[in-house]
Amino acid sequence: MSLPVVPPVDRALESGLRAAIDGKAKPLGALGRIEDLAVRLGLIGGGKAPATGEALLLVFAGDHGLNQSGVSAYPSEVTAAMVATFLAGKASANVFAKAAGATVKVVDAGVASDLPTHPALIAAKVRHGTRNAAEEAALTGAEVEAALANGARIAASEPYDILVLGEMGIGNTASAALIMHRLAPAPLADCIGVGAGHDAAGMARKQTVLAQAAARSDARAPLDVLREFGGLEIVTMAGAILGAAAAGRPVLVDGFICTAAALAAIRLQPAAADYCVFAHCSAERGHRLLLEALGAEPLLDLGLRLGEGTGALLVVPVVRAAAGLLEEVASLEDVLAGRL
Amino acid sequence: MSLPVVPPVDRALESGLRAAIDGKAKPLGALGRIEDLAVRLGLIGGGKAPATGEALLLVFAGDHGLNQSGVSAYPSEVTAAMVATFLAGKASANVFAKAAGATVKVVDAGVASDLPTHPALIAAKVRHGTRNAAEEAALTGAEVEAALANGARIAASEPYDILVLGEMGIGNTASAALIMHRLAPAPLADCIGVGAGHDAAGMARKQTVLAQAAARSDARAPLDVLREFGGLEIVTMAGAILGAAAAGRPVLVDGFICTAAALAAIRLQPAAADYCVFAHCSAERGHRLLLEALGAEPLLDLGLRLGEGTGALLVVPVVRAAAGLLEEVASLEDVLAGRL
Repeated sequence: MSLPVVPPVDRALESGLRAAIDGKAKPLGALGRIEDLAVRLGLIGGGKAPATGEALLLVFAGDHGLNQSGVSAYPSEVTAAMVATFLAGKASANVFAKAAGATVKVVDAGVASDLPTHPALIAAKVRHGTRNAAEEAALTGAEVEAALANGARIAASEPYDILVLGEMGIGNTASAALIMHRLAPAPLADCIGVGAGHDAAGMARKQTVLAQAAARSDARAPLDVLREFGGLEIVTMAGAILGAAAAGRPVLVDGFICTAAALAAIRLQPAAADYCVFAHCSAERGHRLLLEALGAEPLLDLGLRLGEGTGALLVVPVVRAAAGLLEEVASLEDVLAGRL
Repeated sequence: MSLPVVPPVDRALESGLRAAIDGKAKPLGALGRIEDLAVRLGLIGGGKAPATGEALLLVFAGDHGLNQSGVSAYPSEVTAAMVATFLAGKASANVFAKAAGATVKVVDAGVASDLPTHPALIAAKVRHGTRNAAEEAALTGAEVEAALANGARIAASEPYDILVLGEMGIGNTASAALIMHRLAPAPLADCIGVGAGHDAAGMARKQTVLAQAAARSDARAPLDVLREFGGLEIVTMAGAILGAAAAGRPVLVDGFICTAAALAAIRLQPAAADYCVFAHCSAERGHRLLLEALGAEPLLDLGLRLGEGTGALLVVPVVRAAAGLLEEVASLEDVLAGRL
């Protein structure tokens, strides 16, 4: 398999970037974490902020065989219904994207049903949903490779400056929990949350099914873990992260599932971490621990647990502000000398 | 003095708004604090979200006689230099405004020097800086009335859907600390922070000067406190909050100084609180306690302590997203029935 190679950023540039920020017309450190973000963007851009004008939300969609064992309170048909909602412009992700100045496209990475063509739908279906990971490997090795390659190709060919990650897939917190369990790694119990919502009986069932899936395979290598536990939207997203990072463009990571995809991408190529901006801490159990495992400090904490890219979209203007700080704000020296 | 009267929102609308949010195509509660914000916007708009398209940042600028006693590490001339930077489009507030899709104007509420006219500068100078509150009342009662009226008039006449508050005034954390001390109320020591930056000697001097100012007057009524401690940008901003709230429009409150202005406005007319969205928790000491005194839970916590409206601007897209959730996102019922 040939995946794009992600070059690590040049850390030697960091002190110069920090000095540029320190010289801006503001008290030292007064923009807090925006200053850190500006430095990170400068590293991604090789010494100056990358372009941030065009933000593209890709909502990676896929279905999960695990759902046959009842890991979600919702039927898999909801995935396709929500894809139709994104394409109609009437989902939360659409209004958040409008607010953030971002374009929305949906990637059919593995929705269980055939979807009608649409200008904003990118066809990248590897199969109609994954197999049930509680009973067998969710994917074959070839399917994992195909999904990763699809993601990398999409990230290399779509037009954008900032890649914003979103996802839709009934049951995908279950796959993400298994990926986190093996790749963070972390105890399985710490990785399982209520997802889209569960009563106590639903949670108990989800825990039982995931314990069964985990017991079926001791996979620990990234590609093996993705093969065993899926899902296609997660694997395709991991490929897109590698593709965007290889192209030197920032990637805004949304919640629990997107972070599991980032975890897989980073375990495949650690340099991918340099290009990932972790947008928010989700209310989904496990997300905070997963972020800690990646050494990531999310920017927002608003109790979101929807996915779709909603949290990542809210950070698009924050990234643009940080880039503007680095590139457009006057130096204190120029302000005091009246050179504006 | 005639100030605009702020009507309280109709809390009877809240359950219907909550039900509308609960019926959207998303798991119950999955948008966390965005849902609460959407309900608040619906209350401000009388049952539906108010318009949010036009966001206007007003940077209220003024100078402080307290600065003659050394409450800041910077000279008062920096206020006018930063006003010139805003008008040249090269300050942090300008790049944040661009990222947020907001317009920037500056209000000269009381800058010490005469400023050249500019299309984006609103002339509302009550006097050339305040008097030194360590030695005498910063303003007269008539000056407080004039500044409040100026703010209310500007908020009533400028075009905007969302009013975004920002400020610039060397020494203004000192005035804000005194206002907080009397109107929160809170012990003076808890209200004093480093502002734009201080070494230990500078902090000790600021504490001594503010203790002297506080000892000079036992004012506790809002108008008296504003008269004793200023400053003109804070009083004018308080008037603008009342004006925007009276017009039924949301007000995004930035950091410590803006929150002190909101405190004054709310103490004058408690209903103003219904229209204030507290954007972020500043790194300036005192801000968290001040927000608590107002029962406010800020949306962001990014270590900002610049002012200028930078934190409030980052929340503009968040407000637009919340309004979009209420008004544009499909119901789950419609999605499942294929009615899109």
